[in-house]
Amino acid sequence: MTTSALRLGIAGLGTVGRGVVKILQAHGPLLTARCGRPLELVAVTAQSKDKDRGIDLSAYDWADSADALATRPDIDVYVELMGGSDGAARSSIMAALDAGKDVVTANKALLALHGQALAERAEDAGRVIRFEAGVAGGIPCVKALTEGLAGNEITRVLGVMNGTCNYILTRMQDAGLSYDEVFQEASDLGYLEADPTLDTGGIDAGHKLALLASIAFGAKVDFDAVRLEGIERITIEDIDRAADMGFRIKLLGVARMSGRGLEQRMTPCLVPESSPLGQLEGATNMVVIDGDACGQIVLRGAGAGEGPTASAVMSDIIDIARGLRLPTFGQPAHMLADLPRAHASVPAPYYLRLELLDKPGALAKVAAKLGDAGISIDRMRQYGHAEASAPVLIVTHKTTRDALDHAIEDFSATGVLAADPVAIRIEMV
Amino acid sequence: MTTSALRLGIAGLGTVGRGVVKILQAHGPLLTARCGRPLELVAVTAQSKDKDRGIDLSAYDWADSADALATRPDIDVYVELMGGSDGAARSSIMAALDAGKDVVTANKALLALHGQALAERAEDAGRVIRFEAGVAGGIPCVKALTEGLAGNEITRVLGVMNGTCNYILTRMQDAGLSYDEVFQEASDLGYLEADPTLDTGGIDAGHKLALLASIAFGAKVDFDAVRLEGIERITIEDIDRAADMGFRIKLLGVARMSGRGLEQRMTPCLVPESSPLGQLEGATNMVVIDGDACGQIVLRGAGAGEGPTASAVMSDIIDIARGLRLPTFGQPAHMLADLPRAHASVPAPYYLRLELLDKPGALAKVAAKLGDAGISIDRMRQYGHAEASAPVLIVTHKTTRDALDHAIEDFSATGVLAADPVAIRIEMV
Repeated sequence: MTTSALRLGIAGLGTVGRGVVKILQAHGPLLTARCGRPLELVAVTAQSKDKDRGIDLSAYDWADSADALATRPDIDVYVELMGGSDGAARSSIMAALDAGKDVVTANKALLALHGQALAERAEDAGRVIRFEAGVAGGIPCVKALTEGLAGNEITRVLGVMNGTCNYILTRMQDAGLSYDEVFQEASDLGYLEADPTLDTGGIDAGHKLALLASIAFGAKVDFDAVRLEGIERITIEDIDRAADMGFRIKLLGVARMSGRGLEQRMTPCLVPESSPLGQLEGATNMVVIDGDACGQIVLRGAGAGEGPTASAVMSDIIDIARGLRLPTFGQPAHMLADLPRAHASVPAPYYLRLELLDKPGALAKVAAKLGDAGISIDRMRQYGHAEASAPVLIVTHKTTRDALDHAIEDFSATGVLAADPVAIRIEMV
Repeated sequence: MTTSALRLGIAGLGTVGRGVVKILQAHGPLLTARCGRPLELVAVTAQSKDKDRGIDLSAYDWADSADALATRPDIDVYVELMGGSDGAARSSIMAALDAGKDVVTANKALLALHGQALAERAEDAGRVIRFEAGVAGGIPCVKALTEGLAGNEITRVLGVMNGTCNYILTRMQDAGLSYDEVFQEASDLGYLEADPTLDTGGIDAGHKLALLASIAFGAKVDFDAVRLEGIERITIEDIDRAADMGFRIKLLGVARMSGRGLEQRMTPCLVPESSPLGQLEGATNMVVIDGDACGQIVLRGAGAGEGPTASAVMSDIIDIARGLRLPTFGQPAHMLADLPRAHASVPAPYYLRLELLDKPGALAKVAAKLGDAGISIDRMRQYGHAEASAPVLIVTHKTTRDALDHAIEDFSATGVLAADPVAIRIEMV
């Protein structure tokens, strides 16, 4: 192993970039001991050179652009922390690979959309792309899946991978507030992205899931195959009713392999409140991995923020310094499979909230439609009401989403529904 | 990277060895894809050649002894799964290193007692020793600490690392049984080691803690410095009383760095029942890592068993196949520090159970002694009683074990105690 310094160039000095610089400045001797060689930050770049970032950058060269930084002859690793699925992030990473640099990035959107092409380019160039910080912040879940559990056939990966959504959902429950109220709070506190639908629509978390699924199942990353459903339509009523039945609502990502193919979804789900996922509060993330030998492994930690994300970036840099060279998605890019897409093929229990008109036999009519669709009822709860309609909660036995959708379609013919039914999958973990 | 087969020799075909052979047989193509080269099991050895282990060993050479296997010219990696802190395990590993083999082992006792010497020998020989399976079974916690969180200064590592003890404690609580009753149950079910005090005395878990502490703090492994206290003296009464106050009792390992040195202990502790550790049921293990950048990372999974432990062994083998070569404890052995030992220097709240004689002013007398020692009371609960003595529970504010021990010593002068006090540290996680 070489003992010369590993020379770094960092593009992007926002929260994550600043965090990485701070770690490099604070832990020089420790990092040298762990890597067996020094890490040397050579040059940086960002949108504005003059902005005060609260860190001393005087020891580093300033590059005029990401492309210029990425191709400097005096760096070994190009650390891309600008973000964005196209534009400068993408072009500079390609330039870096072509110039013989290894790449470390936190850019999940870029890899979720262009990961296969980038992985192939990296391998053609004999370089590596690492992205631990792209998934679940400080939790070393990419490493766990790619390396720590590499002796397993993975059967399922699931988790809560967007802290903002989990914050909103747990805050709604704790404070009894509506989605709109908590959304406004989160916005006032600066928790939301410029485009908040990236978070609340499940897109950001969907990118992460697509990356984990690729590693777990040896598949080409296929973000388009992720069924996305955001949390915008979750009501405080559903949260409270679910709690009555012993469940919590989470924006849950699930990637599962079955005989029909690879199922990927990022949707609100109910989970048992006593499960590790059910007990996950606030902005924390959790990744749950089921393997044929290891059983269930649960990883939990901060999913965002300066320190945790920088910690993950450092782990990739340290791996490169130590000489670990893995294909981007754990297997050579040309061996990654084009897996057929399976849509929620695995039966599950469902939570169903109906608003029934106060008519004789109303409940019997919808129950009959469920029975016609072959769906049996595990638990049912009817709530008192002062209005012309009454809420009814049903937890079904295991069924498919297709069967449930058919039954829900048939409900309309009964004329007893006061509102559209709400159906949420229950994921047993 | 080489693409020739990585040739393995496995010594020990008990639960773990059998599990490794099964994975190698089941997942050949998958492992080849992940490693970029085939893994080839060349030869095995165990105490009895003729025993039926339920696996087909006909494709492998049988070595007459561990030493013979370890030095075969046709293996690259010697996989030691016999166990035992001395004898054949130790001698064969040294022989393997001297013969230029890398070593993978699940042997925590060996490494906890002789880790420094073995690490030095490995580095002198330019070989690696890996031991993911030695700590917390299937949980990739050695990798998380050595690699995934290598950008952090670690401030504390703690966890439940002995599934048998956690099974006994949760079973006592769930079934309302005494320690002796559950111990007998566990014995009947075959859960206990030949020498059960390795588990119940905290020795096995203490070995694991010493290994994690070495990695976390860059220290020479120092098992003798681990303060050990087993679970044999935990009563159902303490479990129930602790539950009344919102706590669970766990055999908890804690390694923490402070200005005074490295504190290592494996002792029964109270943890909040709502914490991830408090909710850990049965034989599951949990490792909690606090880092200065990542914050708190929690890892949870099966701590023992054929599949989980074999999964961890495979991860080490795969790392070697992929060319990852790290020093045994994450830093070169000669750089590991001889850290001063600190004993429970960090103040904590304590749970105190007293059996007070039914005398006027009894409670006031012990409260005064606590006050004299500078210990203030957070919560106190006196239970009804039919006997000549009454149980009193006290949760103190933060204090040191030394101060508490002095106060407890002073209690005896009051003449109001009907039994020796029970004091258990409360670890806030």
